[in-house]
Amino acid sequence: MTTSAETTARLSVTCPDKPGIVSAVTTFLYHHGVNITELDQHSSDPYGGKFFLRLEFQTPTLDVTGDALARAFGELVAKRYDMEWWISFAAIKPRMAILVSKHDHALMELLWRWQRGDLRVDIPMVISNHPDLREAVEGFGVRFEHVPIDAATHAEAEAKMSALLDGHADFIVLARYMRILSPGFVADWPHQIINIHHSFLPAFVGADPYQQADQRGVKLIGATAHYVTADLDQGPIIEQDVGRVSHRHSVPDLRRLGRDLERQVLARAVRWHVEDRVIVHGNKTVVFS
Amino acid sequence: MTTSAETTARLSVTCPDKPGIVSAVTTFLYHHGVNITELDQHSSDPYGGKFFLRLEFQTPTLDVTGDALARAFGELVAKRYDMEWWISFAAIKPRMAILVSKHDHALMELLWRWQRGDLRVDIPMVISNHPDLREAVEGFGVRFEHVPIDAATHAEAEAKMSALLDGHADFIVLARYMRILSPGFVADWPHQIINIHHSFLPAFVGADPYQQADQRGVKLIGATAHYVTADLDQGPIIEQDVGRVSHRHSVPDLRRLGRDLERQVLARAVRWHVEDRVIVHGNKTVVFS
Amino acid sequence: MTTSAETTARLSVTCPDKPGIVSAVTTFLYHHGVNITELDQHSSDPYGGKFFLRLEFQTPTLDVTGDALARAFGELVAKRYDMEWWISFAAIKPRMAILVSKHDHALMELLWRWQRGDLRVDIPMVISNHPDLREAVEGFGVRFEHVPIDAATHAEAEAKMSALLDGHADFIVLARYMRILSPGFVADWPHQIINIHHSFLPAFVGADPYQQADQRGVKLIGATAHYVTADLDQGPIIEQDVGRVSHRHSVPDLRRLGRDLERQVLARAVRWHVEDRVIVHGNKTVVFS
Amino acid sequence: MTTSAETTARLSVTCPDKPGIVSAVTTFLYHHGVNITELDQHSSDPYGGKFFLRLEFQTPTLDVTGDALARAFGELVAKRYDMEWWISFAAIKPRMAILVSKHDHALMELLWRWQRGDLRVDIPMVISNHPDLREAVEGFGVRFEHVPIDAATHAEAEAKMSALLDGHADFIVLARYMRILSPGFVADWPHQIINIHHSFLPAFVGADPYQQADQRGVKLIGATAHYVTADLDQGPIIEQDVGRVSHRHSVPDLRRLGRDLERQVLARAVRWHVEDRVIVHGNKTVVFS
Repeated sequence: MTTSAETTARLSVTCPDKPGIVSAVTTFLYHHGVNITELDQHSSDPYGGKFFLRLEFQTPTLDVTGDALARAFGELVAKRYDMEWWISFAAIKPRMAILVSKHDHALMELLWRWQRGDLRVDIPMVISNHPDLREAVEGFGVRFEHVPIDAATHAEAEAKMSALLDGHADFIVLARYMRILSPGFVADWPHQIINIHHSFLPAFVGADPYQQADQRGVKLIGATAHYVTADLDQGPIIEQDVGRVSHRHSVPDLRRLGRDLERQVLARAVRWHVEDRVIVHGNKTVVFS
Repeated sequence: MTTSAETTARLSVTCPDKPGIVSAVTTFLYHHGVNITELDQHSSDPYGGKFFLRLEFQTPTLDVTGDALARAFGELVAKRYDMEWWISFAAIKPRMAILVSKHDHALMELLWRWQRGDLRVDIPMVISNHPDLREAVEGFGVRFEHVPIDAATHAEAEAKMSALLDGHADFIVLARYMRILSPGFVADWPHQIINIHHSFLPAFVGADPYQQADQRGVKLIGATAHYVTADLDQGPIIEQDVGRVSHRHSVPDLRRLGRDLERQVLARAVRWHVEDRVIVHGNKTVVFS
Repeated sequence: MTTSAETTARLSVTCPDKPGIVSAVTTFLYHHGVNITELDQHSSDPYGGKFFLRLEFQTPTLDVTGDALARAFGELVAKRYDMEWWISFAAIKPRMAILVSKHDHALMELLWRWQRGDLRVDIPMVISNHPDLREAVEGFGVRFEHVPIDAATHAEAEAKMSALLDGHADFIVLARYMRILSPGFVADWPHQIINIHHSFLPAFVGADPYQQADQRGVKLIGATAHYVTADLDQGPIIEQDVGRVSHRHSVPDLRRLGRDLERQVLARAVRWHVEDRVIVHGNKTVVFS
Repeated sequence: MTTSAETTARLSVTCPDKPGIVSAVTTFLYHHGVNITELDQHSSDPYGGKFFLRLEFQTPTLDVTGDALARAFGELVAKRYDMEWWISFAAIKPRMAILVSKHDHALMELLWRWQRGDLRVDIPMVISNHPDLREAVEGFGVRFEHVPIDAATHAEAEAKMSALLDGHADFIVLARYMRILSPGFVADWPHQIINIHHSFLPAFVGADPYQQADQRGVKLIGATAHYVTADLDQGPIIEQDVGRVSHRHSVPDLRRLGRDLERQVLARAVRWHVEDRVIVHGNKTVVFS
């Protein structure tokens, strides 16, 4: 008997920190025959702070159904400690929709990892405000929807996207989607929209960060994956990375090198989100990677 | 009330993995009024593997003395799960002896961090097979012992070092000590001698790794901190890092760049050892950094 | 008027170092109306060592044809300084053949970069000893040749590959090709076969380096791109990179993380080879990146 | 005969780019018996841009004095190409003054490298607005000057510092000097004041960047060495580096990790400045490292 992705379950918890939480949770699971294979915890402050817990466990020895376990956990443990929590079962793949404009590198990285089984999600659709990538997407057997959007049609276009997405996606990845989503749209997907920004935020917010980086003469360029909130480029950061550049690099060179960073950073962020490794805490994240 | 280095305690555990360990440990501590501030665990294999646990907790709310807590833990928990374990109290600083030859960079990094309070250890002495660094060491107010050693006097010199160290040091750092310690000496300090090797092991074992690196034409050089065992350069690795080099770097350049890597890698490894973040597992380490 | 890939030319030189080489080369080019846009040089030792030079220049203002320029350079400059040298024109794309077995990640990275114009090569064919990747390759519009190979048929299979490659490829990339090429085959392509090895060489030569890395307990894993020589895993290193791992990573995790490193390292090495940025010097490389 | 720091000279050039510059410079040096050991060049744009050149050469075979060489270069080459240029001889060490407040880590890194001969400078004095570090500095045999400074005494204090520095220092390092220098003071030392800022600029300008980094929840912290200009934190960047952090790091942890980054980044920047590897171009730098 070994661990298996198919029989893996994950419990994520956020609650006020006080003594006894880990004891209560692990004792509960122990009594239901659960074998914990990973446990990560974090306290923002042991005296009056927030407590974060992520457990990964195997289900074959569970003495009740997954639903019954969740119900019992809610009643017997979560209430007592005032927990926000969720249990997910890896056998049920989350549905990831992708929004993209014209740059294909981040999109292709996700599709390609998904195709070879590296990313345990279903991809119900890719939506783009340009028709250019239809063939590339459909070549992967993935549905492509073209939803043009401009200032005049913004509300209408978002309504159309919502109609496509609601009930068909669990989270959304902006793989270099170059339009700003309205606060209303964002509010419908709280901490369920992941964006890849092409700078090491908070440096170079806004448009054309590689141009900005060139003008400022930085020696490192970066990429940042973050959850989208109503504040542009200000949402909780999931992952960042940087690469070294010099005076020898032109703006097109920065864009080329940056594409590699964006692909890697977004791929890691999406993996961690899918594996319930990211818990949002205010405008920051706890990442149990 | 806040966390404080003075009131911090740490429990480290290794035992056969089976369900209920975390529950048993945390429940025990909870009942003694302990507030856990960090918990890390690892299982080499949830089915029949080894389980590793590190807990950091605050002692002010403890309902018994530290000694009584340890005794009770041994009887009530550790026996049941067949644990190897230890509890340490940060108020009691471990005693770190340093062995060095002529290169001073690793030594100075440790002394300097210790002097400014970055490294919570006492330094009872520095031992060297050369007299050169006496003034530098004594300038820090640290005792310096010159113990010459060569092939003919090896056993005698080691006996002299043992006489100096036994009962006066808890662990030893080889800060570029260029003599090979005998298996007998090493056996007296199991996983209590940390060495800094100037390559990314297992590449370039043996003498003059920067010369070897130059000849092989590698594009990265590295440094490795590891516990010393009877097998030269083969002990459990604690930490490694690398830096980028090119055809422009001569062997002296590699040595210069390598010194910076050695200092950083050794400093991290010693810190983690001092904070009980390293647990040896066969010829590997679990590092809860 | 601006620089353009189509009008870019490159001169690469290796010769005994002595005073006046740069002066002679740049004066020659200057008199033919050439505008130098990049110049890199390296001397292994200014007194009796080897000298390496790489120039990038624009051809529109050239006062003769490319062929005439090369002929004149050979007679007027190269002979005097005993140079090995070549001039290449970026408008003529080199032909890159790819050999692969079953792992597709390195192959896909190259095909995908090629498809989007990031890699200025033609790809005349992909050869594999397994049929599995035919569909993936042909989906890019690239010819796929299945050449089975085993101990009994090794010579015959290599002969078949040579027949396919000779006159149709300028260099070969082993994108995780898991068979060892014979010294004879390798000798036909001196410094024209690039391999991606899945470790930071010289650590973990031979089979299954991620398994070896796990057993040794290293804290960094790596990948190495090198030219293939008759000595297995010993050829001149072009590029290396590493990523951080811990006790939490299983061998499959190392393989997964390593795939990302292999893709990045191979892509950089191939780009530099294509842009004539790599000059071999004995068993090492000068890389003007 | 080999290269030697004592007999090394360096020529740095900035001028409008046009064909023939390298040829003219290297031909001139060739005719004076100079053996070039390093040559780096950069063009911001081959058509109408700026050209940057750095040459390192050995003086023993020079057929004239250093002064005569410089005079001849100025008349015969520099004028023709409208060059800004300087020649320096490594035998003459530049004089580096250090300004510091209370944090000693950046200061100590410089003093310690200087003491062991890693940094080829003279250190005429350390100036601080606090008396705390006198003993540490004087322990290295370096003069310490305490110049208190506050809002009321700012002009007077700067005047006192200028009196100490003028004619006694060639450049100044702000090794965590926490007072803002006036535009007038800065103007006296154009591109001759190096500051270490404790963030990856342009992120987190201004006060307490580690606090800002914690609040923003970044996954990387950094340090930036730059030349000081009248615009606070906006001067030309010389070098940057970053380190990985997570939710587990408190603000004091960020400060501790950041200190290591600051030391490394500042040490590299100072070395490059001392070796004439940095040429300022507008608000950016060309670094021939």
